[in-house]
Amino acid sequence: MTTDRKLVLGIGLIDGYGGMHGAWRAPHVDPGTYTDVDATVRHARAAERGKFAFLFTPDFPAVRGDVEHSTINNLMDPLIQLTAVARETTNIGFVATGSTTFQEPFNTARQFKALDVLSHGRAGWNAVTTSDPAVAANYGRPVAERAERYQRAHEAIQIVQALWGSWQEDAWIKDQAANRFIDPTRLQPVNLQGQYVASRGPLAIPPSEQGQPVVFTSGGPSPHLLSIAGRYASGFIAEVWTIEEARAQRELVRNAAREAGRDPDEIKYIAGIMTTVAPTVREGLDRRLKYSGDVIEARLPHLGAMLGIHIHPDRFDEPLTPEQLSSAHASPRDPRSANALAVAREGWSPRDVLAHGVIDFHPTVVGPGALHADHLQEWFEAGAADGFWVTPDIYEDGVDAFVDEVVPILQERGIYPTEYPGTTLRANLGVPHQYGLDPRITGEPE
Amino acid sequence: MTTDRKLVLGIGLIDGYGGMHGAWRAPHVDPGTYTDVDATVRHARAAERGKFAFLFTPDFPAVRGDVEHSTINNLMDPLIQLTAVARETTNIGFVATGSTTFQEPFNTARQFKALDVLSHGRAGWNAVTTSDPAVAANYGRPVAERAERYQRAHEAIQIVQALWGSWQEDAWIKDQAANRFIDPTRLQPVNLQGQYVASRGPLAIPPSEQGQPVVFTSGGPSPHLLSIAGRYASGFIAEVWTIEEARAQRELVRNAAREAGRDPDEIKYIAGIMTTVAPTVREGLDRRLKYSGDVIEARLPHLGAMLGIHIHPDRFDEPLTPEQLSSAHASPRDPRSANALAVAREGWSPRDVLAHGVIDFHPTVVGPGALHADHLQEWFEAGAADGFWVTPDIYEDGVDAFVDEVVPILQERGIYPTEYPGTTLRANLGVPHQYGLDPRITGEPE
Ligand SMILES: Cc1cc2nc3c(=O)[nH]c(=O)nc-3n(C[C@H](O)[C@H](O)[C@H](O)COP(=O)(O)O)c2cc1C
Ligand SMILES: Cc1cc2nc3c(=O)[nH]c(=O)nc-3n(C[C@H](O)[C@H](O)[C@H](O)COP(=O)(O)O)c2cc1C
Repeated sequence: MTTDRKLVLGIGLIDGYGGMHGAWRAPHVDPGTYTDVDATVRHARAAERGKFAFLFTPDFPAVRGDVEHSTINNLMDPLIQLTAVARETTNIGFVATGSTTFQEPFNTARQFKALDVLSHGRAGWNAVTTSDPAVAANYGRPVAERAERYQRAHEAIQIVQALWGSWQEDAWIKDQAANRFIDPTRLQPVNLQGQYVASRGPLAIPPSEQGQPVVFTSGGPSPHLLSIAGRYASGFIAEVWTIEEARAQRELVRNAAREAGRDPDEIKYIAGIMTTVAPTVREGLDRRLKYSGDVIEARLPHLGAMLGIHIHPDRFDEPLTPEQLSSAHASPRDPRSANALAVAREGWSPRDVLAHGVIDFHPTVVGPGALHADHLQEWFEAGAADGFWVTPDIYEDGVDAFVDEVVPILQERGIYPTEYPGTTLRANLGVPHQYGLDPRITGEPE
Repeated sequence: MTTDRKLVLGIGLIDGYGGMHGAWRAPHVDPGTYTDVDATVRHARAAERGKFAFLFTPDFPAVRGDVEHSTINNLMDPLIQLTAVARETTNIGFVATGSTTFQEPFNTARQFKALDVLSHGRAGWNAVTTSDPAVAANYGRPVAERAERYQRAHEAIQIVQALWGSWQEDAWIKDQAANRFIDPTRLQPVNLQGQYVASRGPLAIPPSEQGQPVVFTSGGPSPHLLSIAGRYASGFIAEVWTIEEARAQRELVRNAAREAGRDPDEIKYIAGIMTTVAPTVREGLDRRLKYSGDVIEARLPHLGAMLGIHIHPDRFDEPLTPEQLSSAHASPRDPRSANALAVAREGWSPRDVLAHGVIDFHPTVVGPGALHADHLQEWFEAGAADGFWVTPDIYEDGVDAFVDEVVPILQERGIYPTEYPGTTLRANLGVPHQYGLDPRITGEPE
């Protein structure tokens, strides 16, 4: 099937290693990659070979989780590292998470627009509120109430976008003969005073090739977040497990845009997926079992609960019995259960079911490229996503494997571009031009 | 004369153009350089050829002054632009100004240490308080009282340095076989709670090749600032016009270090200088007159006041008369007056006296390389400076001219290194190792 609509892909760059807990331990991975920007550049270039529209960096700047066995799970600093990558790539965009809760709007406006200019129009800002207590503690503050966080987010995003527009697109004269560098009347203060944040401006940074950075947001689809997404965002980074859930959530996001007076196609809904590309499913599972650490065994009770059966640890490596399979049913309490049951019914042992990633953060695909392409196509054509952020199991070879084994199939099927649509993030996402605040969005959110 | 002590040089990178108001108008300068990181990389590499220890970026993030005729006078964003430069240079360091007043200590700690790691030990933080109302307004706040600004500065610097040390130097195990990424017991919170800022930590960034970034400070020698300099700084960026003033100020800074229990040689006093390197003084003056804009004519009354005489605008291009010269005397109210008088006595017209830069931000040298070398040597040997931050008139050719015409003379005279002492900023400044807080500095400042 060929269609005019193409899907958009990004890479989820969690850290330097990959989506698997033990990615850092793979023999072909340098365990020092956390501080090695050369590696990030290599992974970005591999993604660029596959016409990926962007790298997406989540950001939880705190020491969290099992750092003893599974790395820091965050970049040292997204903007600093992406700046280095920007100079050594040409088309791929950068969607960096930046907190509206703990960053000053003036600094956010400044650094993201500087990156946008330096990268010739490839920057995006994933504007999130921060609710993680460990992160809040690093700023010496408690976690604020949701209402306060989102009020501040509205103020911060409006200030940032207004600052981006405060150097008018035609302000920079640079006429040496006439001795006029800039037209100061076209560099205007924004004078925005919110309840939590404020800025006078202007910001002394001219437009980039895409005007200004693209705003993304991400989170659960609460009314608070939907108001942010509907009013300001051109991209929505989602965490969803099933097609049904994704379709419903995507509709919520699109409706939020409609309610804000925008065309819903102006916001791209980007679902998550984790990938292990391997010649066969078996080889893929073995690769995953090798680098999943203790996570697999620890998840056995949870798998039993998802299937509503007891699985004895002694039978971890045996397929479920016919009796177990007939009494098993997908728990309504975990949207991942139906998929877990379907995988179990294929005859895999509990260990292998878990190695399929059925309890991972995102849907996981394990096996040959065509399986991956099928997943993406199915979701895309079902209206469950406009694109995907892909977290490979191990960046070092997983990005290349995706580009070599999955991308050509998507291209053959006509649902993925064979060339970059353009050189800016806006062009590659297919979202419209914007400079400054969107004039359709005014005043306070309802 | 040969000595073991060598002077240290940095380039003052105010914007992309140079120290002269009209640098952007020179025909060999691209007026779009403000957004062109390639140009910054080129200037940095030229400086590296001359064994410059660092690039220094002041930072006043606001639209100030005559932007219509003389550029924005600031970088788009120091850390973003220096990160790009770091990847394309190998030895030169980066001393970026960061406000203790308007930056969150956690962000400062994170971004500077990320740059330090990425540049393999070449980052420095010029920690200043911010008293500029235009900058404060961009953060939606009034200018704080000096006492409050400096109290917050003490807290911020202590938190930043403590965070830098919170990933202990031997914490990173990265043993793939033993499945131990990090020793979590060697990643410890800092739990610092100040009156204005606080952070729990730890910061998840390992040591760089120099351990942690080098702290600088700059400003006038108030007791408040001297307390900051004496306790934390390894470099002091000064603005001084005469040898006498510089010697006295350098002694104040060194005494502040002594009072904090440190060896005064641990802090390098770096005086400013502006340079126009040209085959002859006349050619240098002509270059300056061409690109100084209206500044020269506007300064005529000030020159008269400095010399205690009236200078008629009609006689702008005539040397002072013998009567004027005999009644002229250096005004005690402006430390630059003695130099202005000395230049006038050489027989230059008022226009040419001003073109010598006698009313510039720093002492200015105009003419052949030897004149520049004489200035640096005289100050250095008089104990007026440990080094200099050099602001060339026009970066595009002014850095190269300094490197080709001044550096070899300094090297011949034995007061400047012929090779980089090392690859880190600490090595090239000659300041000692430090990781985390200095154990000699405890508690509150007096
Ligand atoms: C897919 C996804 C990605 C997220 N990325 C980040 C992130 O990178 N940094 C962050 O602080 N919060 C991130 N969040 C958290 C949200 O921004 C938000 O704090 C969280 O959903 C709780 O907020 P709530 O009050 O809206 O429920 C993410 C959430 C989701 C679902
Ligand atoms: C040489 C020099 C460089 C400075 N660089 C900066 C700078 O880059 N950014 C800034 O905000 N202030 C800078 N300052 C200003 C000081 O940090 C300080 O705000 C100012 O001296 C007034 O503060 P005070 O209260 O200590 O007098 C600089 C001052 C001097 C003398």
